[in-house]
Amino acid sequence: MKVIREWKTMLIPYEQAVEELKVKFKAIRNQYRELSEYSPIEFVTGRVKKISSIIEKAERSNIDLDRIEEEMEDIAGIRVMCQFIDDIYRVVDLIHERSGKDFEVLYEKDYIKMQKESGYKSYHIIVKYPVHTALGTKKILCEFQIRTLAMNFWATIEHSLSYKYKSQIPDNIKERLRNSAIAATKLDEEMTEISKEVINAQLMFEEKSNT
Amino acid sequence: MKVIREWKTMLIPYEQAVEELKVKFKAIRNQYRELSEYSPIEFVTGRVKKISSIIEKAERSNIDLDRIEEEMEDIAGIRVMCQFIDDIYRVVDLIHERSGKDFEVLYEKDYIKMQKESGYKSYHIIVKYPVHTALGTKKILCEFQIRTLAMNFWATIEHSLSYKYKSQIPDNIKERLRNSAIAATKLDEEMTEISKEVINAQLMFEEKSNT
Amino acid sequence: MKVIREWKTMLIPYEQAVEELKVKFKAIRNQYRELSEYSPIEFVTGRVKKISSIIEKAERSNIDLDRIEEEMEDIAGIRVMCQFIDDIYRVVDLIHERSGKDFEVLYEKDYIKMQKESGYKSYHIIVKYPVHTALGTKKILCEFQIRTLAMNFWATIEHSLSYKYKSQIPDNIKERLRNSAIAATKLDEEMTEISKEVINAQLMFEEKSNT
Amino acid sequence: MKVIREWKTMLIPYEQAVEELKVKFKAIRNQYRELSEYSPIEFVTGRVKKISSIIEKAERSNIDLDRIEEEMEDIAGIRVMCQFIDDIYRVVDLIHERSGKDFEVLYEKDYIKMQKESGYKSYHIIVKYPVHTALGTKKILCEFQIRTLAMNFWATIEHSLSYKYKSQIPDNIKERLRNSAIAATKLDEEMTEISKEVINAQLMFEEKSNT
Repeated sequence: MKVIREWKTMLIPYEQAVEELKVKFKAIRNQYRELSEYSPIEFVTGRVKKISSIIEKAERSNIDLDRIEEEMEDIAGIRVMCQFIDDIYRVVDLIHERSGKDFEVLYEKDYIKMQKESGYKSYHIIVKYPVHTALGTKKILCEFQIRTLAMNFWATIEHSLSYKYKSQIPDNIKERLRNSAIAATKLDEEMTEISKEVINAQLMFEEKSNT
Repeated sequence: MKVIREWKTMLIPYEQAVEELKVKFKAIRNQYRELSEYSPIEFVTGRVKKISSIIEKAERSNIDLDRIEEEMEDIAGIRVMCQFIDDIYRVVDLIHERSGKDFEVLYEKDYIKMQKESGYKSYHIIVKYPVHTALGTKKILCEFQIRTLAMNFWATIEHSLSYKYKSQIPDNIKERLRNSAIAATKLDEEMTEISKEVINAQLMFEEKSNT
Repeated sequence: MKVIREWKTMLIPYEQAVEELKVKFKAIRNQYRELSEYSPIEFVTGRVKKISSIIEKAERSNIDLDRIEEEMEDIAGIRVMCQFIDDIYRVVDLIHERSGKDFEVLYEKDYIKMQKESGYKSYHIIVKYPVHTALGTKKILCEFQIRTLAMNFWATIEHSLSYKYKSQIPDNIKERLRNSAIAATKLDEEMTEISKEVINAQLMFEEKSNT
Repeated sequence: MKVIREWKTMLIPYEQAVEELKVKFKAIRNQYRELSEYSPIEFVTGRVKKISSIIEKAERSNIDLDRIEEEMEDIAGIRVMCQFIDDIYRVVDLIHERSGKDFEVLYEKDYIKMQKESGYKSYHIIVKYPVHTALGTKKILCEFQIRTLAMNFWATIEHSLSYKYKSQIPDNIKERLRNSAIAATKLDEEMTEISKEVINAQLMFEEKSNT
């Protein structure tokens, strides 16, 4: 069993990777703006999984604690939020184009075309990222989650409830969650209907703000 | 007609007020978390209106440029985002309780109970805020907009389109905007249905993260 | 004896006060720059004393734990760094001018004209600051320390050594500290000799950067 | 002659590189602290040269504007500040160890052992850094400047004066600058005398703050 100090040392490269990837993907938005082009990225967040959550997940998923770094792919996580559904696939392309450069794409799951039973939607990509720290150089796994603002709102709520009920959400709440997932999808679809209008509008708006 | 330098000097206290009010309202969220209580505030943003937008609005609203500081109430703006509709009214109460302390509430408009024809929803409160800068002390007007995440998403899109069409949005797009406003309201209502479940869940979640 | 949770609750208004005062004094620098005037403030930091340090200081200074908030004046601390010695007194004047507005000056100590035996130099001002939090309104004490960059460098080193030797620094190290205090003072005096030249130069530099 | 838009586009990868390198080197300090080891890095800043300064330097140094990216090595600049002189050489070693990993060291100049006539001291390293942006992948030059706090204070003042007098500083001010350079060196040497005492002290101090 690892002691706290060992856990903290193990997580240092993950924290560094999350910081670097946040800087790299937040910058893309500013670069599009600088070039007066529409950005498919609205905002970016990142986090390292808490030690207690790593241990819980290892138990739940039958991952040996010595194999965590090879088998748990979301210790480092980057979340990219988009305004519209189409933007998600543009971000996916951006990530593919960088594979073999500053990281390597391992595999991906499209939970938008194939949503989870709970109602969860997002596009996941797992990459291998080389990171350099005071401890030396290491390649670590990192999970990208790419989603719209409405998908993110829903997922945040669902995650709280899943935590509360230890993944045993009562049926009536599950039902309500599915209803709100439908409402979120409806909002995304209505918004996508006007997305082309909006993209040009935001571009004009940002150009003006640059002057 | 003011020259750029005069405008910039005029806006210094507004920029300072926005910075201070952001710090004050962002802190409330952290304080609730520290006390292991649910926070009605999800996040807070703020901005000072751009000079070009002030001039346009003054023309549109027939405000004399010498009377801007007394009559234009949203040069300084603070936006408070909430997870659920009920939270909005808790934030409104929080602001009322501080009236006569660090600022003074002048008046308010409930565009949630009485939404605008466009579909716009938010709760607005205008306050008078005393601010101290290298230029001396001054009382300035500031507008709070309090809204859910879904209301905010819709309003951002509508604002871009309104800018693009110079407030003359074509009828077909107006119609689509109204549909998406309905979808946003539906999402808020579904979410509010499960809000009590979620509030407790997030509390448990945050308590755990504190340890 | 307070439990951790009580300490954390007690410190919430102090943390809020430090955040607000940092925003207020950092802004002064930007305002001078915006007005193309030389700023006597180079940069600003702030901190709330750690619980363990509060307890140690209370023991060392014979302060009853129930009287900490009235008698320990540096639980909240703001540090203002200046380029030149003369700037310190301009910052002192700025603070006096605000007394009776957003805070109240209680008293002050000029450890520059009357340096401590250790070699320590800084100007200290204690103020009473009203702060509003999720817990209500409260007036707390806050200590400003105003010093040059060289005084700050020296004080940081001396503080580490004082901690290491539990305020019983060996004589030979005390002697070396006094030598480095003399070297720091010499650097400040040489810099002050050219300060008028530099103030104009930095003004030109900043004006150019604004365009 | 480039137009502003072309300049801004050219500088995008430089801005990105500076952001990434700041994140990478700031992190080293936190990692040492996490591991309860003394950090040779005190703080890190970075900047991209302003367009007007690039043009001035190109003229002064006879660099053809089409060759700027190959020949001007400080368009991207990272500054690493250390407490003590010995720390500078530890940072130099850290940078060498990463050569061939996330960047490549091209060459270096030790202006500490061989100070400039003006009194300027710093260690310079030029690296080639690969950066990925919305525009694609590119290798850019970046200059590291590694120096103590006292060297940095002096260099900042000298830079303002050099700007004011367009590199033609009058003799009497040059003389005063050399005197202050001597005072800065004296301060660094006195501090280095007690550095071993301080390194242990800061370590104890930081360990305690971690608990």
